[in-house]
Amino acid sequence: MKNKRIVIIGGSAAGPKAAARARRLDESAEITIFQKAPDLSMASCGYPYYVGGFFDDRNKLLCTPTGVVRDPKYYLNAKGIDAKVNTEVTRIDRKNMLVEFKDLTTGETGIQPYDKLIIATGSTPKMPPIPGIDLEGITPLQSMQNADYLRKIRDDKSIKKAVVIGGGLIGIETTEALNLAGIELTLIELLPQLLTFLDWKMAKLVENYLKTKANVITKNGVAEFIGENGKLKAVKLANGTEIPCELAVVAIGVTPRVDLAREAGLDIGELGGLAVNDYMQTSDKDIYAVGDCIEVTNKITGKKVLAPYGDLANLEGRVAGENVILNDVATFKGTIQTGICKIFDYGVGITGLSEAIAEKEGLDYIKVVNASPDKPGFMNGKLLITKLVAEKQTGRILGAQVIGPGDVSKQIAIWATAIMGKLTVDDLANNDLPYAPPFSLAIDHSIATAHIMQNKMRGLFDGISALEVKEKLDKNERLYLLDTRGPDEYEQTRLGAGETLIPIGQLRTRIQELPDDKSTPIVTYCKISLRGYEASRVLKAHGYTNVKVMEGGIMGWPFEKEK
Amino acid sequence: MKNKRIVIIGGSAAGPKAAARARRLDESAEITIFQKAPDLSMASCGYPYYVGGFFDDRNKLLCTPTGVVRDPKYYLNAKGIDAKVNTEVTRIDRKNMLVEFKDLTTGETGIQPYDKLIIATGSTPKMPPIPGIDLEGITPLQSMQNADYLRKIRDDKSIKKAVVIGGGLIGIETTEALNLAGIELTLIELLPQLLTFLDWKMAKLVENYLKTKANVITKNGVAEFIGENGKLKAVKLANGTEIPCELAVVAIGVTPRVDLAREAGLDIGELGGLAVNDYMQTSDKDIYAVGDCIEVTNKITGKKVLAPYGDLANLEGRVAGENVILNDVATFKGTIQTGICKIFDYGVGITGLSEAIAEKEGLDYIKVVNASPDKPGFMNGKLLITKLVAEKQTGRILGAQVIGPGDVSKQIAIWATAIMGKLTVDDLANNDLPYAPPFSLAIDHSIATAHIMQNKMRGLFDGISALEVKEKLDKNERLYLLDTRGPDEYEQTRLGAGETLIPIGQLRTRIQELPDDKSTPIVTYCKISLRGYEASRVLKAHGYTNVKVMEGGIMGWPFEKEK
Ligand SMILES: Cc1cc2nc3c(=O)[nH]c(=O)nc-3n(C[C@H](O)[C@H](O)[C@H](O)COP(=O)(O)OP(=O)(O)OC[C@H]3O[C@@H](n4cnc5c(N)ncnc54)[C@H](O)[C@@H]3O)c2cc1C
Ligand SMILES: Cc1cc2nc3c(=O)[nH]c(=O)nc-3n(C[C@H](O)[C@H](O)[C@H](O)COP(=O)(O)OP(=O)(O)OC[C@H]3O[C@@H](n4cnc5c(N)ncnc54)[C@H](O)[C@@H]3O)c2cc1C
Ligand SMILES: CC(C)(COP(=O)(O)OP(=O)(O)OC[C@H]1O[C@@H](n2cnc3c(N)ncnc32)[C@H](O)[C@@H]1OP(=O)(O)O)[C@@H](O)C(=O)NCCC(=O)NCCS
Ligand SMILES: CC(C)(COP(=O)(O)OP(=O)(O)OC[C@H]1O[C@@H](n2cnc3c(N)ncnc32)[C@H](O)[C@@H]1OP(=O)(O)O)[C@@H](O)C(=O)NCCC(=O)NCCS
Ligand SMILES: [Ca+2]
Ligand SMILES: [Ca+2]
Repeated sequence: MKNKRIVIIGGSAAGPKAAARARRLDESAEITIFQKAPDLSMASCGYPYYVGGFFDDRNKLLCTPTGVVRDPKYYLNAKGIDAKVNTEVTRIDRKNMLVEFKDLTTGETGIQPYDKLIIATGSTPKMPPIPGIDLEGITPLQSMQNADYLRKIRDDKSIKKAVVIGGGLIGIETTEALNLAGIELTLIELLPQLLTFLDWKMAKLVENYLKTKANVITKNGVAEFIGENGKLKAVKLANGTEIPCELAVVAIGVTPRVDLAREAGLDIGELGGLAVNDYMQTSDKDIYAVGDCIEVTNKITGKKVLAPYGDLANLEGRVAGENVILNDVATFKGTIQTGICKIFDYGVGITGLSEAIAEKEGLDYIKVVNASPDKPGFMNGKLLITKLVAEKQTGRILGAQVIGPGDVSKQIAIWATAIMGKLTVDDLANNDLPYAPPFSLAIDHSIATAHIMQNKMRGLFDGISALEVKEKLDKNERLYLLDTRGPDEYEQTRLGAGETLIPIGQLRTRIQELPDDKSTPIVTYCKISLRGYEASRVLKAHGYTNVKVMEGGIMGWPFEKEK
Repeated sequence: MKNKRIVIIGGSAAGPKAAARARRLDESAEITIFQKAPDLSMASCGYPYYVGGFFDDRNKLLCTPTGVVRDPKYYLNAKGIDAKVNTEVTRIDRKNMLVEFKDLTTGETGIQPYDKLIIATGSTPKMPPIPGIDLEGITPLQSMQNADYLRKIRDDKSIKKAVVIGGGLIGIETTEALNLAGIELTLIELLPQLLTFLDWKMAKLVENYLKTKANVITKNGVAEFIGENGKLKAVKLANGTEIPCELAVVAIGVTPRVDLAREAGLDIGELGGLAVNDYMQTSDKDIYAVGDCIEVTNKITGKKVLAPYGDLANLEGRVAGENVILNDVATFKGTIQTGICKIFDYGVGITGLSEAIAEKEGLDYIKVVNASPDKPGFMNGKLLITKLVAEKQTGRILGAQVIGPGDVSKQIAIWATAIMGKLTVDDLANNDLPYAPPFSLAIDHSIATAHIMQNKMRGLFDGISALEVKEKLDKNERLYLLDTRGPDEYEQTRLGAGETLIPIGQLRTRIQELPDDKSTPIVTYCKISLRGYEASRVLKAHGYTNVKVMEGGIMGWPFEKEK
């Protein structure tokens, strides 16, 4: 049998992973990677940390765990893979089963036949089609070259003011990176909130935190880039404001790079990504596609989504690499769109559906917010705020958002695994997690979240969101706000929205101070609304019929406070 | 209807949790906690950290997250619960549905009728019945008073040498605590390994690390405590060795405290714990039991086990607290015996079954070891070593052990949730976890572990444990050891067991240097055995029929090395 010829277009994450897996399954296959960029195996997700100065050695973005740079020589010797850099595939010829390519340094062209082809062309950054976009000083952060450019700015200390356009994951990571480079920064987001995959309140809490580090402008887009001698001097917002800056990083999202595939007549999905089945196979049985350039199935809704994530690129690559050798044995069934990012001392993560998406999908859901620490106070526990969304009838977990200085990553990992297992709130309520004080509370934050949700589902806990409370206050609706904290806590910080302070320890003896009308709408809360919940139980037992707990308490309040 | 009388025996973890939950479900119930100890709601799991000086304020072990000490006044005011400290229940009178109690300060006795009784009497530390056990300077670390005693020793700097007897979780935590108190320490374990819930090799790796911090003696018990003027001077081991010391902390396990229950004729299980059903109900329908004093079901084996863990105490307490009010609606279905502990800069955790237990249970299992970092090198990734055990036919996850300086807690939480969801290796292999460089590798350590297991289950990866390799070497069996690292790595550290060094990048061109006999038993490895695995694929493709990868590589090698 003649050796199988495997050709891979794209040499960053998904492509090389597919190549490496294929090699391990077939030592005799002829495996070729075409890579347009000069580097291979770039850890693009690490760019913000290189720019931010978490490390100085550029090679660390390109090397194996033992420090060997993954260049063509490495690929040849260690993997037996022919990786051609600076080489662009210019056409896929399906009929003759070959690709045409061009060496970008020499200009030479050539052809390479394939038995199986894997497309891993990734994505291109969206650039807004507005005046001045071509000025010097405007860049995305997508390629190694972009990272080099920004890192040089850091090292040269050549710039004082910058803007980042786009409040998504990469925009926010870039904000941190440039801030750490000592640059005064303004983050600009067109929409009413940052991190649009989060629900509004969660995003607002992140925004409040981020504002302690950088300027943040929302609900306002960039209308024009203003230059001088071809160099960026300022950005002009839709509302006319001008922000002086010498650098603008554009991070408004990415688009699947499917031009080659489209020209070759492969099926493209509605969202603009390559259409593949669970084997990562395109509409041509000998052509596979993986990574940022494809559409994948959301495992909860069953719908196609774009999920341009580095972890998925690797998992998809591994599946395709296997299938081109062993003929469609491995599957990648989809994503639950799990993501996380670090923002200074905060973690921000999501898995599964937000409330907004659950709503849009017409699902019958229930949600709850839990603000509480990740560890005991004596071990310096830090705050976590979780918003959990579950199916109303069954309690099946649909999604979780977690933010805060606490251990967000572990919480999201738990919820992601729970969603994969189709677990319910009741399952999570008795989850046997690893407990010791250096790692968690005796009742882990995720378990406490499940407990609160159980209470809510069974009517023991009537929750109200901070947003609803704020709306009622703004509308001057009748509302008796009961703060159940101690006087010292009240002195330190408080809503100042007309609330009454009765510490939980005095509630039973001071209950007569509450309105006589037992149908008065009452909202209880405390720092995190644990005592608020207890107060609600006491009031209900005393005949109050309209008592709600403000979920997340003061820690979950995203609006201005008196103090 | 008259108010329900709920009586609870035990006021540390399970008891108060049951009381608090019951209160929230029934504001009018009369709830009484009897607590023999002078304190309530002690975070016993925090004792080692108090002794070790992680914090200095003793009250932090007893207070709410906002700093209020949970004393009888707090219980009365904030919870409406009558908590009697220094008060021992001396008898349960089931016929008359009352308990007899004694105030330990005044000596007065009394009776308290109940409608529902909850037993949460916890456990007592085992003390070895050997000569000298009553000498001053010998203590367990079980009560607040024990913690006070050891903390005073820390503060007074009154002691230079100590021994800890027992290499379980608490023994090891105590070793760290006393070491941090500046005391020269020897840990003594009768059995051949520390942490007996781990498999031997994993425990050995922990032991190797611990030895860099303290003296560790295994396979040797204490035969006698030697004193002078009533004070401990030394311990004498079974082999005759005398170890001078002024303090001995005994941590050889705990026994369920069931004397009251036994006298009252309640069913006791085979392991000595109170027998309860999933409602936490004893053989008397009006009596419930929770916490360290009960036996619970292992959800994987279906067998009863003792699981004296603080998290389970709380979960069980919550279930019982609910059931005494709402009549058997909530269930606690059991444990998978998840546990974790911190040992200086290491985490050590387990969930589900170890290989030893799977073996004992006669399960058809497969296991694998993965040593690899938790995060990218450029984010200072730290090593994790995982041993995964799965059902051979189905791939269902049975258990995972994780050790190392990396993020053990998240790994164990993932596996625990996976076990609860009855997930398989294939499920975990495509788990959509939260990925960003500050939190994990693009392929999370748990996913990589699942990948290696997939490879092993499908015959792509023939593993051999370090233990088996060592045995073969000791028996002088024919074995060609192939180290596939770079020469610089080899210079730094190596087995020195007759291995041949061929870096992976040279293997394909130097293959003729390998033995001509293709049936030669070959074992490949590298630092973590990733390159070892790749080498095995190359060798197999070249016709070698007897190639195995040493799982975990050098990082997983628990024995002496040349360098
Ligand atoms: C700054 C930044 C931060 C990120 N952070 C995270 C994160 O924290 N977590 C996360 O999950 N994901 C993150 N991502 C996303 C992640 O990096 C991508 O999902 C991943 O790189 C996609 O891999 P890919 O191989 O599909 O595509 P790419 O990495 O885009 O690689 C595609 C490659 O194909 C080559 N190519 C394209 N067309 C051709 C052609 N015609 N011929 C030859 N070669 C071609 C290109 O040169 C390119 O290198 C981040 C991305 C960026 C830019
Ligand atoms: C040093 C140490 C570290 C630990 N670390 C961890 C850890 O990291 N993770 C983990 O999960 N678990 C850990 N544990 C175990 C955890 O603390 C226990 O599982 C938990 O405390 C059990 O709670 P309990 O309420 O059942 O029993 P206990 O905490 O033992 O409380 C029982 C109480 O009942 C009272 N009592 C007994 N008999 C009577 C009577 N007749 N009348 C009145 N009162 C009575 C006693 O005074 C006692 O306070 C640790 C324990 C110790 C000692
Ligand atoms: C690294 C890369 C070249 C893929 O190469 P690879 O050889 O598959 O490397 P990986 O580390 O992913 O996997 C190593 C293999 O060894 C196995 N392995 C990992 N640790 C192991 C261990 N301790 N023992 C044995 N085997 C191990 C894995 O299962 C995998 O094998 P498999 O896929 O056949 O199951 C490709 O992913 C890449 O270029 N990545 C860099 C860029 C990137 O990921 N960017 C996006 C995020 S920033
Ligand atoms: C603390 C203790 C008294 C139990 O009292 P508790 O009032 O149930 O306190 P918890 O913090 O456990 O639970 C608070 C309640 O508020 C809920 N809650 C927690 N956070 C909340 C939030 N942010 N918003 C709303 N409700 C919240 C919980 O679900 C729980 O209610 P539920 O049990 O009715 O569902 C008892 O566990 C104890 O004594 N613990 C200390 C000792 C110990 O645990 N030792 C072993 C480990 S070291
Ligand atoms: Ca992900
Ligand atoms: Ca546990």
